[in-house]
Amino acid sequence: MNARVYITLKPGLLDAQGKTVKSALDALGFKGVKDVRMGKYVELKLNGAKAATVKADVERMCKKLLANPIIETYRIELVQT
Amino acid sequence: MNARVYITLKPGLLDAQGKTVKSALDALGFKGVKDVRMGKYVELKLNGAKAATVKADVERMCKKLLANPIIETYRIELVQT
Repeated sequence: MNARVYITLKPGLLDAQGKTVKSALDALGFKGVKDVRMGKYVELKLNGAKAATVKADVERMCKKLLANPIIETYRIELVQT
Repeated sequence: MNARVYITLKPGLLDAQGKTVKSALDALGFKGVKDVRMGKYVELKLNGAKAATVKADVERMCKKLLANPIIETYRIELVQT
């Protein structure tokens, strides 16, 4: 089974990288960009077919390593292969 | 309209960050992780309601700034707000 994890800063926290990208887009002439927020995207290939078990494992991976739960939120998506 | 962009290294290219994360997960005792690939995730808030126009704009942003089209691929998802 594959898992996709999307990690973003919690809303309200200043996203300096996103602000920089927004300025760069403005400077390149792209109009109509109101806000940019940057995050991380992780694709995992996993053994195991039980969605519930795999999801629980990936949750633990996020809490222990992939995300910083103090300042980041994450969303997990399972993809059957 | 909101757009979500997922940027990953092209398949076949060595993903050093992903390899490192995989080793760290192994070391933490997570079994069954076969592969990890890291990417970037960008959330854009945009003016404009026409999906086709917005998508074309975001394509151009990816090619010009967000992604490196030589080594990276990207996927765009539009979210109606």
